[in-house]
Amino acid sequence: MKHLLSAGDLSRDEATLILDTAEQLLSVAQRPIKKLPTLRGRTIVNLFFEDSTRTRISFEAAAKRLSADVINFSAKGSSVSKGESLKDTALTLQAMGADAVVIRHHASGAPHRLATSEWTKGAVVNAGDGTHEHPTQALLDAFTMRSRLGDLAGKNVTIVGDVLHSRVARSNALLLDTLGANVTLVAPPTLLPVGVETWPVETSYDLDASLEKADAVMMLRVQRERMNASFFPSAREYSRRYGLDVARMNRLPDHALVLHPGPMNRGMEINADVADSDRSVIVEQVTNGVAVRMAVLYLLLGGATEGESA
Amino acid sequence: MKHLLSAGDLSRDEATLILDTAEQLLSVAQRPIKKLPTLRGRTIVNLFFEDSTRTRISFEAAAKRLSADVINFSAKGSSVSKGESLKDTALTLQAMGADAVVIRHHASGAPHRLATSEWTKGAVVNAGDGTHEHPTQALLDAFTMRSRLGDLAGKNVTIVGDVLHSRVARSNALLLDTLGANVTLVAPPTLLPVGVETWPVETSYDLDASLEKADAVMMLRVQRERMNASFFPSAREYSRRYGLDVARMNRLPDHALVLHPGPMNRGMEINADVADSDRSVIVEQVTNGVAVRMAVLYLLLGGATEGESA
Amino acid sequence: MKHLLSAGDLSRDEATLILDTAEQLLSVAQRPIKKLPTLRGRTIVNLFFEDSTRTRISFEAAAKRLSADVINFSAKGSSVSKGESLKDTALTLQAMGADAVVIRHHASGAPHRLATSEWTKGAVVNAGDGTHEHPTQALLDAFTMRSRLGDLAGKNVTIVGDVLHSRVARSNALLLDTLGANVTLVAPPTLLPVGVETWPVETSYDLDASLEKADAVMMLRVQRERMNASFFPSAREYSRRYGLDVARMNRLPDHALVLHPGPMNRGMEINADVADSDRSVIVEQVTNGVAVRMAVLYLLLGGATEGESA
Repeated sequence: MKHLLSAGDLSRDEATLILDTAEQLLSVAQRPIKKLPTLRGRTIVNLFFEDSTRTRISFEAAAKRLSADVINFSAKGSSVSKGESLKDTALTLQAMGADAVVIRHHASGAPHRLATSEWTKGAVVNAGDGTHEHPTQALLDAFTMRSRLGDLAGKNVTIVGDVLHSRVARSNALLLDTLGANVTLVAPPTLLPVGVETWPVETSYDLDASLEKADAVMMLRVQRERMNASFFPSAREYSRRYGLDVARMNRLPDHALVLHPGPMNRGMEINADVADSDRSVIVEQVTNGVAVRMAVLYLLLGGATEGESA
Repeated sequence: MKHLLSAGDLSRDEATLILDTAEQLLSVAQRPIKKLPTLRGRTIVNLFFEDSTRTRISFEAAAKRLSADVINFSAKGSSVSKGESLKDTALTLQAMGADAVVIRHHASGAPHRLATSEWTKGAVVNAGDGTHEHPTQALLDAFTMRSRLGDLAGKNVTIVGDVLHSRVARSNALLLDTLGANVTLVAPPTLLPVGVETWPVETSYDLDASLEKADAVMMLRVQRERMNASFFPSAREYSRRYGLDVARMNRLPDHALVLHPGPMNRGMEINADVADSDRSVIVEQVTNGVAVRMAVLYLLLGGATEGESA
Repeated sequence: MKHLLSAGDLSRDEATLILDTAEQLLSVAQRPIKKLPTLRGRTIVNLFFEDSTRTRISFEAAAKRLSADVINFSAKGSSVSKGESLKDTALTLQAMGADAVVIRHHASGAPHRLATSEWTKGAVVNAGDGTHEHPTQALLDAFTMRSRLGDLAGKNVTIVGDVLHSRVARSNALLLDTLGANVTLVAPPTLLPVGVETWPVETSYDLDASLEKADAVMMLRVQRERMNASFFPSAREYSRRYGLDVARMNRLPDHALVLHPGPMNRGMEINADVADSDRSVIVEQVTNGVAVRMAVLYLLLGGATEGESA
C-alpha cells in the first residue's frame, strides 16, 4: 500500500491491517505522553484546498503523535490562487521533501491525479475529494463499529441522508461491503446519486422501515445550502421524514449504534437527545479518527529505517 | 487549580504561586536553548474565535518551550462557521486528546461554559472572553509590576481609558485587589461600566489628580472604532484629557511605571516618547507574558507523570 | 554576518560560505530522518505581511529540519491590521524571544528598518520586500546553477521578463555579479526599471539575440495583473516576444539551464514542454531552496552554544 486514495481500493486484509494497527495505536493516544518516535524527521504536508479544520487537526494530531513534522498548506492566498496548477504545487511539495501529502480538494479525483502522476514520490492520503471519497472517515467509522459490535461481517448498517453529495456515504458503502457488512442507503429520491444501483448496497426512501434490523445507523450531515426547494420541500419536512429523533432511536435494537461524521446540525438530521444518548458513538468516532490516521501514516511511511541523526 | 477562567477566582496564594513559578521559568526564556521537556507529548489547542495573533503566539511560544505539541484552531472557515455549536467543538477537541484548550471568544462567559460542562476533561485557559476577562494579561501585568516594585500590597495602580469594553481592566482590578494593591480606574463617565461601584476600586474622571500618588499607570488601548460622538467628542479631545504624554509622565513619582497591554495607538492613549521612555515596561510585559503562560500551563497540566515512551 | 537583507551585501566569500554550507546540508534533506539538532530550542518567526505559501513553507521546512520551533505570524487579522506599527510588532517578537525573524513585506526596505533599528536583537532574514530584494531566492538560484555548471565566474546568465517589478531579478543581478557571472536582462523597455544602467548588467530588448551564448536562462514570473496596455500590448504578444518556447530552448547551448522562481504561468512566460524538459532545473531550485535556507539560518544563529537543558 503506497497511497490511500479510495476505500474501494482496500482489500479486506489491508483494511483489517489498518484497523488492527489503529487498535494498538489507540493506547498511545490514551497515555499522558501521547508520542511515539516512529516518524521523527518525516515531513507531512496538509494540503487543503477546502477548509476543514476538523479533519486537518485530526491528521495534524495523528502526525505529531508519531513525531513527524507537520506543515499546513492552505490553498487560500497561496500560489494556487495565483493560478498555479495542481501539478506544480505537487512538484513543489515533493521537491521540498514531503514524505506524505494529505490532500483535501473540491474536485473529485484530485488525489488520484496527484498519486498516479510522476509529480510526487511520497505517499498521498485522500482527506476528502469533491463528492467522491473520504476513506479515513470510512475507516474510523468501521473501527468504531467493530470495537462495539465485533466483526462487521453480516452486520446491517443504515446510512441516512444526502447520499448524493456525500463522500462519506460512498467510502462507507465500499469499505463496509469489503468487510462483509450489509449496507442500506436511506434518502429521498432526489438525494440518491445516479448510478447508485451499481453500488453494493440496498436503497430505500423509508427510514422507519430500516430501523428494526439495523446494527448501526449513520446519519449524514445535511448541507443546509443544498436544502432548497429543488431537492426537498423544506428543512422541517426533511427532519420529519429523515431525521433521527428519540422515537425512532427507541425502535432500534438495544445494541444498535448511532454514528455521525460531524459536524452535526442538531435538530436537523439528528435530535440533540439522540446525539447525547448512550447509543451515540459520535465522540468515540473523533477519538478513533486520530488513531486510524496514525495507523494510515504509520503503514504508508513505514517508520524510520536508517540510523537517526541525533 | 484545574482551569484558569477568571482572575477573580484566584486566591492570593494561587496567584502568588503562578507568579513565583513564572519567575523561575523566565530564566528558561533567557537561555539559548529555550526549552524544557516538561510537557512533551501533551497537546495544547489554541481555539481562537477572534483574531489575536499577539496572544496566540505568546501561548504558542510558551507551550513549545515546555515541549508540548500545539494545534492552532482558528474558528474562521471551520465547522464553527458551518453552525457547529461550542459544545460540539469542545467535545471534538476533547475526543482528539487535547490536554488543554486555550480559548479566545467574542462572547463573555464562553470559557466558563467550556470548563463547567461535561464537554471537556482537559484544562481550559481563558485567553480573553468578550468584555469580561483576560486573566493571563492581569497575571503578566502583576508579574511585571512585582518584579520592579516588590510586593504589590499597598501599591497604587491607576488604570486609564476605555474600562467599559476592557477585559484587561476588569481582570487587573480583581487580581490587584487580591494581591492587596489599591486600584483607581480613570475614565470618562461614558466609558465606565454600569456596576463599577461593586468593583474593589476607586473611580475618577480626572487623570491628573491620580498621577502623583501612582506607583504604576496602566494605559488601556482605545478601540478606535468605538471612539465616536456617543462616547466622547473626538479622538483629539480624548487624547488631551486621558492620554499619557510627557508632561503627565513627569508628574509621576520617580519610581512609577508605565504599562500598556498592546497593541498601542501611539499618539492616542499614549505618547510615543512615553512608550519608549525608561519608565515604560511595555516590552517587559511581553517577555513576562510568555513566562506567565508557561507557568499557567505547567501548573494546570502538571508535567509528565508517567514513564516516557521514547 | 548578522542578518541577510540584500544579496548585494554579501561578499564573494560570504556567498560562497552559504553555498558550501547548503551543499553539506542538502545531504540531510535526502536522508529518511531529515533532521539535525542544531537549532533545538531556538524560535524562528515567519512574519509575513504578504501571502507567500511557497516561500513560507520552504523556510518552515528548513527551520524544522534544524529542530527549531517555528511560529507563523500572518499580518492579516493581526494587530498590524489594527494599526500597530512595524516597530511595535518587532519589539513584541523580540520580547517573546524570537531568535530570528523571517520577514516578507510589501514595502521595499522593511527588513532593513527591522534590522538596523534597536527593535530587534535577533537575526533578520529578508524573504522578499516590495520590488526590492529576495536574497535567498538569488542564493538558491546560484546554488542550482553552480551545482550544474561549476564555478559561476565568467558564466553568462540571461534574466527575462518583468524586471521592473521583480525583486528576484535585482537580487540575482547583484549576487551573480559578486560571483563573477555576466548578467543580461531581457525585457520590453517599459518593464526595465529606471536606473538599470547603474546595475552591473547588460540589457537587451531582444530575447533571441541572447540565447546562443547563455549558460542559463532565468524566466521571471509575469504578474498577470500588471500585464495591461500601459506596459505591453497583450499577453499573447508578450508570450510571443518574451516567452520561452521549445524553438527558443533548442537554440540554447547543449549545457544551458532553464530556471524559474515559480509559481509558473505555463503557456505565458514559459512553455509547458520547456518547463518539463531535461534542461529545466525548476524542481531542483525548490529542493535547493530548503538547503540554502537551512544554511542561512544555521550561519546566522550559529547553533547551540551552551549546554542543553534536556
